[in-house]
Amino acid sequence: MGSMYLGIDLGGTEIKMAVVSDQGKIIEENRISNKANSDPSEIAKRIILHAKGMKNFKKLRGTGIGAAGDIDQEKGVIRFSPNLPNWKGTNLRALLGKELPGPIMVDNDANVAALGAYWLETKGKAKNMVCITMGTGIGGGLIFDGKLYRGATGSAGEIGHVSYEPFGPECKCGNLGCIERYVGAQYLNERARELLKNTESYTISTLVKGNYEDITPKVLAEAAEAGDSVAKKVWEEAGERLGIFLSSIINLLNPDIIVLAGGVSRANNLLLKPIKDAVAKRAFKTSARACRIIISEYDRNLGVVGAALLAKK
Amino acid sequence: MGSMYLGIDLGGTEIKMAVVSDQGKIIEENRISNKANSDPSEIAKRIILHAKGMKNFKKLRGTGIGAAGDIDQEKGVIRFSPNLPNWKGTNLRALLGKELPGPIMVDNDANVAALGAYWLETKGKAKNMVCITMGTGIGGGLIFDGKLYRGATGSAGEIGHVSYEPFGPECKCGNLGCIERYVGAQYLNERARELLKNTESYTISTLVKGNYEDITPKVLAEAAEAGDSVAKKVWEEAGERLGIFLSSIINLLNPDIIVLAGGVSRANNLLLKPIKDAVAKRAFKTSARACRIIISEYDRNLGVVGAALLAKK
Repeated sequence: MGSMYLGIDLGGTEIKMAVVSDQGKIIEENRISNKANSDPSEIAKRIILHAKGMKNFKKLRGTGIGAAGDIDQEKGVIRFSPNLPNWKGTNLRALLGKELPGPIMVDNDANVAALGAYWLETKGKAKNMVCITMGTGIGGGLIFDGKLYRGATGSAGEIGHVSYEPFGPECKCGNLGCIERYVGAQYLNERARELLKNTESYTISTLVKGNYEDITPKVLAEAAEAGDSVAKKVWEEAGERLGIFLSSIINLLNPDIIVLAGGVSRANNLLLKPIKDAVAKRAFKTSARACRIIISEYDRNLGVVGAALLAKK
Repeated sequence: MGSMYLGIDLGGTEIKMAVVSDQGKIIEENRISNKANSDPSEIAKRIILHAKGMKNFKKLRGTGIGAAGDIDQEKGVIRFSPNLPNWKGTNLRALLGKELPGPIMVDNDANVAALGAYWLETKGKAKNMVCITMGTGIGGGLIFDGKLYRGATGSAGEIGHVSYEPFGPECKCGNLGCIERYVGAQYLNERARELLKNTESYTISTLVKGNYEDITPKVLAEAAEAGDSVAKKVWEEAGERLGIFLSSIINLLNPDIIVLAGGVSRANNLLLKPIKDAVAKRAFKTSARACRIIISEYDRNLGVVGAALLAKK
């Protein structure tokens, strides 16, 4: 067994903690509840307490923390987190560094998930990876030459805010036609509701007990698996759009692997088949053939594993 | 003075050669004519002869060659070059390595131009750069963490074949709506001719002596500078499209600098102003502020300088 690292996935409702091997294996884990208006110094005390209670605490060679939002990786500071407004400006490195094993590394959830996927899905063997986390928002992380690529100001990887249509619908970021606006969870749900204005769906209606506002990607995946034509159309459209989009990513970055993760990606083949069809039609052949496109099996652990491996040299 | 390298820019009509300092300064240069049906081994002999005739030949610490087409950088082989069909499969490393100082490095023209721009425009100081070469085709090269990024199969940086509109006009690569299809030289010329169907332009007509088939980006730049409304519209449209496109690149890659080079970029502010306007409106603020967008002043030397610096460790 090589070195071990402590990973902390700092969420708005829950904090996951795990002792992780240098190959990305979870050895020991733990959870703490959190809430949006939590106080950083109180939560830090609880994190430290739980960390010290872990069997392998003495063996840890570093600590990594992942959180949603704008993170100053160099300083280890949360500049701003949408889920944890009170944590604005919190210096996690200072707050945790006295009690937890250093180095204390901090990064945003999308980068951390990419690093987790890199180890869990490729055992650290891929050279260049693009990771796309698909939930309400579409996030991303880039691994180039085996390392997280952060760009000039640590802001790289905003894959959700790459344009799909130059004059498409307005995105919350202020731009028009961002890919998030087409394949983010809420837009899939909206698209289904739009289609349901003209087509009845007994399956979807049953799954949401008649309330279309309760449609989620999970409902749409279930309905599509059961053969529902509206749900199938939503996934086909989303998959084709993602495939067109990924063809561009493949031509630009020529990655070894693209990993899709997050709630929306659990639609699996409903999404993956139209993606692969579009890529086969549109991307450069050499680059397309060199690029595996997969959906992560390790979904829920990517954050905590990736966080831990931030601390690996 | 540090080390010196020999750069060879292998074009279809001309071969530029230069002795280049490790900071990208041209110390000595030379040209050989070439033609599309030239024989590789004959040309290689002439290259070697001319190289040996250079004053600083003994001081060279390596040789780099740039050529259009599909290059196997690891083996130093031209897999295929559209400008030099007879050179298909030519192992330049083997052909030149016995007589010219090694290492013998080979890469495609877009990567080589990016490396040249990296040294000439940033003195090797930028961390992350995107270079876009704009001529008949739109090419690109990516520098990440100070090094050329080549991707899984050496095919990265095909910026011209990133989608601008998912169902736009067909591109010669087989995909639809590639950005090259909107801002490549021939499409600017076509767009001008289209506009001229409904609007007369005394300026353009005079510049091309009445033959609209002779319209070039250079003509359009001259006409726009002279206030011609058709030409101005062509550049405003192209600039806005490039700006929308670069907003995506900025959100995705968060580069320190984007360098535009090649014939089309010589329109300078006609292109740069609408680009910057679109980026200011559309890209993430932090990333947009961190990214300089410039047009290369060293245009014609990027290839030979970048080629030489391929050989720099």
